[in-house]
Amino acid sequence: MQIDGARFLKDLHDLRAIGASGIAKGVVRPAYSAADIAAREWLADRMRDAGLDVRFDPAGNLWGIAKGKSLLVGSHSDTQPEGGWLDGALGVVMGLELARAAQEAGGPAVSVVSFQDEEGRFGVTTGSAIWSGSLSLDHADTLTDSAGTSFATARAAMSHLIGDFVDPAQFSGFVECHIEQGPWLDEAGQSIGVVTDIVGIRDMRVTFEGEQNHAGTTPMHRRRDAFQALSAFNTALNDRLRNVVTPQSVWTIGHVSLHPGAHSIVPGKVVFSMQWRDGDTARLTRMETVIRETAADVADATGMRLSFSEMLGLEPVAMDAQLRKALAQAAQQIAPDRWREMQSGALHDATNVAALMPAAMMFAPSINGISHTFYEDTHEADLLCGLNVLAAALPALAKAGGGS
Amino acid sequence: MQIDGARFLKDLHDLRAIGASGIAKGVVRPAYSAADIAAREWLADRMRDAGLDVRFDPAGNLWGIAKGKSLLVGSHSDTQPEGGWLDGALGVVMGLELARAAQEAGGPAVSVVSFQDEEGRFGVTTGSAIWSGSLSLDHADTLTDSAGTSFATARAAMSHLIGDFVDPAQFSGFVECHIEQGPWLDEAGQSIGVVTDIVGIRDMRVTFEGEQNHAGTTPMHRRRDAFQALSAFNTALNDRLRNVVTPQSVWTIGHVSLHPGAHSIVPGKVVFSMQWRDGDTARLTRMETVIRETAADVADATGMRLSFSEMLGLEPVAMDAQLRKALAQAAQQIAPDRWREMQSGALHDATNVAALMPAAMMFAPSINGISHTFYEDTHEADLLCGLNVLAAALPALAKAGGGS
Repeated sequence: MQIDGARFLKDLHDLRAIGASGIAKGVVRPAYSAADIAAREWLADRMRDAGLDVRFDPAGNLWGIAKGKSLLVGSHSDTQPEGGWLDGALGVVMGLELARAAQEAGGPAVSVVSFQDEEGRFGVTTGSAIWSGSLSLDHADTLTDSAGTSFATARAAMSHLIGDFVDPAQFSGFVECHIEQGPWLDEAGQSIGVVTDIVGIRDMRVTFEGEQNHAGTTPMHRRRDAFQALSAFNTALNDRLRNVVTPQSVWTIGHVSLHPGAHSIVPGKVVFSMQWRDGDTARLTRMETVIRETAADVADATGMRLSFSEMLGLEPVAMDAQLRKALAQAAQQIAPDRWREMQSGALHDATNVAALMPAAMMFAPSINGISHTFYEDTHEADLLCGLNVLAAALPALAKAGGGS
Repeated sequence: MQIDGARFLKDLHDLRAIGASGIAKGVVRPAYSAADIAAREWLADRMRDAGLDVRFDPAGNLWGIAKGKSLLVGSHSDTQPEGGWLDGALGVVMGLELARAAQEAGGPAVSVVSFQDEEGRFGVTTGSAIWSGSLSLDHADTLTDSAGTSFATARAAMSHLIGDFVDPAQFSGFVECHIEQGPWLDEAGQSIGVVTDIVGIRDMRVTFEGEQNHAGTTPMHRRRDAFQALSAFNTALNDRLRNVVTPQSVWTIGHVSLHPGAHSIVPGKVVFSMQWRDGDTARLTRMETVIRETAADVADATGMRLSFSEMLGLEPVAMDAQLRKALAQAAQQIAPDRWREMQSGALHDATNVAALMPAAMMFAPSINGISHTFYEDTHEADLLCGLNVLAAALPALAKAGGGS
């Protein structure tokens, strides 16, 4: 089987022209935007050219399906509002080139997917969550983006393309290539990451309510300042988590909303996001306990009313051992000592697909570890290395899942 | 001279019906709103009934002017978006009753003012700042409120009422009555506060810029999280200020804006408000030094870029000694041992007027120390006590400034 690296790179660059930001190699292709739909139609044409049967499902996931039992390869082609050119598009175009080369060579059968709204305009990995059954289409239709647009309204923009859901039973397994979005491969000068598992996530909003008051006439000792409670909580939490976490554990306060948010008013209320991730479900639960206890202690000490939103989460997922082994052996063959096994700290569509079939992931390095910006990039030599590893692994990947 | 307490209380209750919130005794009369303008027209009618010459100046300040040299008494009748019924309206209606009683008694001459936008929809004590010359009308016209409306557009809603500015030389002095907006009088069971001085204020925005990154793939030790920098700054500042401040000093972080403000993104930037107040200019400066040095130290320690906005401020202002003495003697006569001398932690129009003429202030108690909410209130016995003190002080107040 003969893959064509130049054709693969040309497709990546042609694709990034759709919704190009004009800044660096950046792309603006949020899920269901005109640019996202145009990119999906362009990908559909390439899939047809490759002899695949093209389908769009009700969530807007794009499928290029090979005959018979096939290995599914892909990722997503939607981007963050300020996105990079590779991110998930890399995995989709890798799947396209692999399927194309396999068709030309007469097998093994490779199908391609570009999942919709992986970046979570509406949910978390929305398109693959719907396909895998963890999110119902009816429930998804009620979700809204930050501008208040409903998922039902957004996906209607693709109604002229949409058909039925695709039967997962026709796929022997799923392999997703993606950029690492972290620093480890780039720092080590390595080209390939074979993912061992995808971390789990917990996410909720925490509210402290104190007393709104005049910032001139309220003495410090009489204040019940919600921002001061947040700061005390953050300081205590960083200290108390030390005995619980590992170097792979992360926790983030990324959103803070103070009420009323005026220079001259002691803030009476704060709502903030509390998100944490780890590869071990038990540790996620221990972190949750520390977070809830610390918030309660700070609320008691500072005279705040405390409340928590519903907690959302995804469990850690281990990658399929056989598929992992196939990728590792190919990596060692193509890039000896320039690859590693590693955990994924980011969520991916593979988390959902793993509920349906054996799933595995491979990472390409992110220069300086940055992603979700216009400046995200990967050396083309590493992109080609990843494609070659995938091609070398294909026979074993197809056999592992019992594909043709 | 015979004041009429029932007439005074009826006017206060009639006034609060204009823009009544329907919640407790709350009022919604933001500067230049229809309710604010209606309230000013209602007050203008009462001033005419009292035999005063009614004028509106270009800023929308309302004047009821007695013949000859007169003592100016008043405050403001605009409110916060969620305001109380007394706040500044108390001082305006007290001035109205005092002027009315003085007219009936044939002197001393009392004029009345309701300044515009004391609550700072556009600036800080905007109407009195323009009249006192600390803010030019041209500059004020360029200011916008939080909805983006310009001051020029807002004051145009009063154009049918507006005439020239009023000559300050005709006033012998200014006395402003206002609710305390703090807990001290209420806690001590006292009825009257005679203000010694109004604190100064410093206000600026501080920006920390770190690195925006993925909240799943960026290890804790590699993050440059702007929220963490803010939290570290707040903790260090509270500690370092202890050796500088007095129990009267206050400092507040009331507004925090995280960028991009997403659950799954390590915040790369925070802009927050830093405001502090004290009665001593030198201490305000020492606090500024601690604030700037602490921010610089935290920026160094956490790898942030640090920047400060222009710093705005008003200097502390001492109340006129003769006017203060007149109020204190009347307070001791009317409410022996139920009054105190005290500092004002809130800004007031008197801060601006003091640049033009002798100025003094008197406070009524705030039940539970609350203000700028619908639930702000004062016992009517205390309102009447304040009016009686002002009436008893009037001869000395008029003489102090050389009024007729």
